[in-house]
Parts: sequence; structure tokens; C-alpha cells
Amino acid sequence: MKKNFRLLIQYDGTDFHGWQIQGSERTVQGELTKAVSIIEGEEVFVCGSGRTDAGVHAEGQVANIKISREIGPDKLKAALNGNLPFDVRIVSVDAVDDSFHSRFSAIGKTYRYRVVNSSVMSPLLSRFASLEYRELNLEKMIEAACTFVGQHDWTAFSAAQSDSEDKVRTVSKFIVTSHFSEIANGNIFEFEVTGDGFLRYMVRAMVGTLLEVGRGERSTASIAEAIQSRDRSLSGPTATASGLTLVRVYY
Amino acid sequence: MKKNFRLLIQYDGTDFHGWQIQGSERTVQGELTKAVSIIEGEEVFVCGSGRTDAGVHAEGQVANIKISREIGPDKLKAALNGNLPFDVRIVSVDAVDDSFHSRFSAIGKTYRYRVVNSSVMSPLLSRFASLEYRELNLEKMIEAACTFVGQHDWTAFSAAQSDSEDKVRTVSKFIVTSHFSEIANGNIFEFEVTGDGFLRYMVRAMVGTLLEVGRGERSTASIAEAIQSRDRSLSGPTATASGLTLVRVYY
Repeated sequence: MKKNFRLLIQYDGTDFHGWQIQGSERTVQGELTKAVSIIEGEEVFVCGSGRTDAGVHAEGQVANIKISREIGPDKLKAALNGNLPFDVRIVSVDAVDDSFHSRFSAIGKTYRYRVVNSSVMSPLLSRFASLEYRELNLEKMIEAACTFVGQHDWTAFSAAQSDSEDKVRTVSKFIVTSHFSEIANGNIFEFEVTGDGFLRYMVRAMVGTLLEVGRGERSTASIAEAIQSRDRSLSGPTATASGLTLVRVYY
Repeated sequence: MKKNFRLLIQYDGTDFHGWQIQGSERTVQGELTKAVSIIEGEEVFVCGSGRTDAGVHAEGQVANIKISREIGPDKLKAALNGNLPFDVRIVSVDAVDDSFHSRFSAIGKTYRYRVVNSSVMSPLLSRFASLEYRELNLEKMIEAACTFVGQHDWTAFSAAQSDSEDKVRTVSKFIVTSHFSEIANGNIFEFEVTGDGFLRYMVRAMVGTLLEVGRGERSTASIAEAIQSRDRSLSGPTATASGLTLVRVYY
């Protein structure tokens, strides 16, 4: 009888080719699969709440695994961390009902995107942020971010190679903040977005679009037009992966 | 006629064998020397406010260079950053009086040491912190840190191979704080110490000693005894380099 365990996972995505196993590339799912399979003695499928792309980080990714090895959650956590490289860590392990599925049971996610607004990217911040050296208008970006909230067809804000047929998702919250940081030698802007699900590149396309607004290159009204058009060419560029972190998955 | 420039420098010390040039090792001073020498057309001495050891970071290291190349501070900053690897950055460049000497003109420094108190080291924090999984008592460490404040002979808290003859330094401030961090999955303890100068390994030995106090393995009184003894074996272990950052140099 296999037991189902939920894993809370953090990773620094810098040196990973994303979550999903693909050939011989170094991926988070690949490292986890190796670590779990050593414990189980045979290959185990590590089911994640969703993929993250190359270079994207996680503070709270969730996965579940079904294993027959008799082991408690705390020992499993220690054993997994012992078998994993230091850029991916298991924060907690919980025994869960057999019906728990990290992907299908998820009801929402929060992502955070961090931008350093300075002439120079601090080496103390560079792994988990992207750089914008031009001036950014916070108020305009806060106003524009409201346009994203609601249920929409997000075709204009997703990758052409997105494998989801259904492009309708609901964004429930989009918070834009800014604070001065001595380390950054300027302001750090944070974009925190919560929704019931996100298409591939969707958060990064939304942030890339908001940064155009912040630089005064695009109006708030143009965002609603872009959403309605379902035309990828009307939204902004995909912001770099390094700034993006999966903060939390809701169940 | 050479002009004197003050450089404000940040680096992620993880992949450096410290500040000072030594043979073919990758060092911060070595990378800066290469970058400045390209601009000047001949080898230039990069004079730092002091060394940092292998793995130690800087948010505000200061150096000065004397060059004959006709170039303004802003262009020099851009040119240097263009010639430097991304883990070391020039935050600002100022033209200064010929008498300015980054080491001899310095009147004080602030260092910060960061400890993640958790069962697991978050990969999002690991480059700039060290891990302590045992319980730490904040109040005891705050009380013990006061013992360090004042003018003392720090022989018991410095490396045997320290090259300073005079071991007397004044610590003017030692602040210990703690805050819960969701990313850390526990508390982050910060030790911020300011003084007129520090011997080699001094901050890390002070922090290593305070952590013994925090874990209940040593009394506050034993710190004054250790200082007075001038015996390295009576102070605590040298805390790992990764947690230490040179925050600021005062002039």
C-alpha cells in the first residue's frame, strides 16, 4: 500500500532548466525524482503543482509523491534533503490523504516578481530580481495592474507554445509596491499576483507590460485592449525569468 | 597628473578567494585591477579599505585608484562595470582629493552577520547567511553582545596569523535582532557590529561566541573572561564566511 506525501519545496532556479524533466538537462523535477527514487528503490513520479520555467524560483512549490517505503514525514524530509543538491530544499513533508493531487487539488497560486530600479544591478540581489535602469512611475503601474484583476481570456499574455487549450483564468489580486533599498542603490519594485492559475509566461508578460506603463511608454487603457484582442503582439515583452518566484500554492 | 577616484563596491563573495590578490586565485582586488588596468592602459594598484576573507560579501566596500586617463566619474563607473564580472559591481565613483586613502582615511566599519535559524537552509537565502538548526535565545545574545562594546585587546578573537601587531580596537555598537521569515521557515538573526577597525576573523569569532551563548552553552560572563585572557582557545569558533557582509566604511 503506497502512502501519499505532500512536499513543500524551495529552489533557486538560476541553475535549473525549469521544473520539468527534459532529457539530460538539470531540472528540479529531475533532481527530486532521483532523490525520491533512491529512497524508494525504484523510480517514483514526482507530481508538481505546475511547471516553472528555466530560471524561475520557488519559495513554496508543492509536489506529492506516492511511495511504499515505510518512513515518517520527518525522516523522509531529512533523507530527501540529504540526497538533493543545495539549490533545492524540502521545507516540510506531510502525510496526506490518497486523494491529494498537487496539481488538480490546487485552487490558486501567488507569484512575486522583483525589479531593481537602479543604474547598477547589485550582486547581492541579482539572482532573484531583474534590472530596470529607467525611471518607473509606481502610481501608474498600480492603476494599470487593476486592469488585470478579473476573469479573462489570457491568450494575449501567454506563450504561443502554451499547451493549455482553455486560456481563461481569474486573477484575484495584483499588488504593486516599491521601497527604497540601500543595497539596491535605488528602489525595489515588487509585483505580487494571485489567481486560480496562470498560463505559461503569463506573469512575466503582465509584468513586462506594466513596466512599459511605468516607463510611460503605454497607457493603462491599452492593457484592456490587449486582453480583449487576444493578440500576443499587443501586450508587452516577457520580463526576464530571474525576477520571478512562485510564492505559494493554495489548496 | 594622476587623479584620485573613490569607488563604492559591492560583491557576492561566494565565488571569490577573498579581496586580496594572491597568485592565480580569483579575487575581488584581482578582478578590479584587471578592469582598471584595461582603462588606464597599464597596471593600476587598487587600494581597498581592508581585506575581506574568502566567501565574505560586501554591500559597501570602498577602494581608491589613481589614474591619468582623462575620464569623468560616471564614464569611469560604466567602463569599470563593463569590464567586471557580474558578481562584483561599482555602485558609484567620486573624484576625490589626492590625500584620500581608502584604508588610512577610514575611521570605522560596520559588518552584518546573518543566521537562518531553521531545520533547513532556504536556497533563496543560503548565499548570504549561515544555518543554525538549534534553538537560539535572543535576549541572552543581546545581553552578551554588550560585553563586546568598548576598547579591548582582541587577541582572543582574532586569527593567529593576523598581521596586525596592535590588537586594540574599539567596538562602538553591537546590535542583535531577530525576525520571523516565511522564506527562512524560521527566524533570521542579524548581528550588526560597528567599530574603528576589526582584526582578521574578529567578527566571525564574536558571532561564533554569541551563538554559543544563544544555544545556552556559554555564559555572558565568560566573554569578558575570554577577552581579558587574550587566549584564542577561550572564545568561540569562527562562524562560517557566507553569513558575513561588510556593510559600510566610514570616513
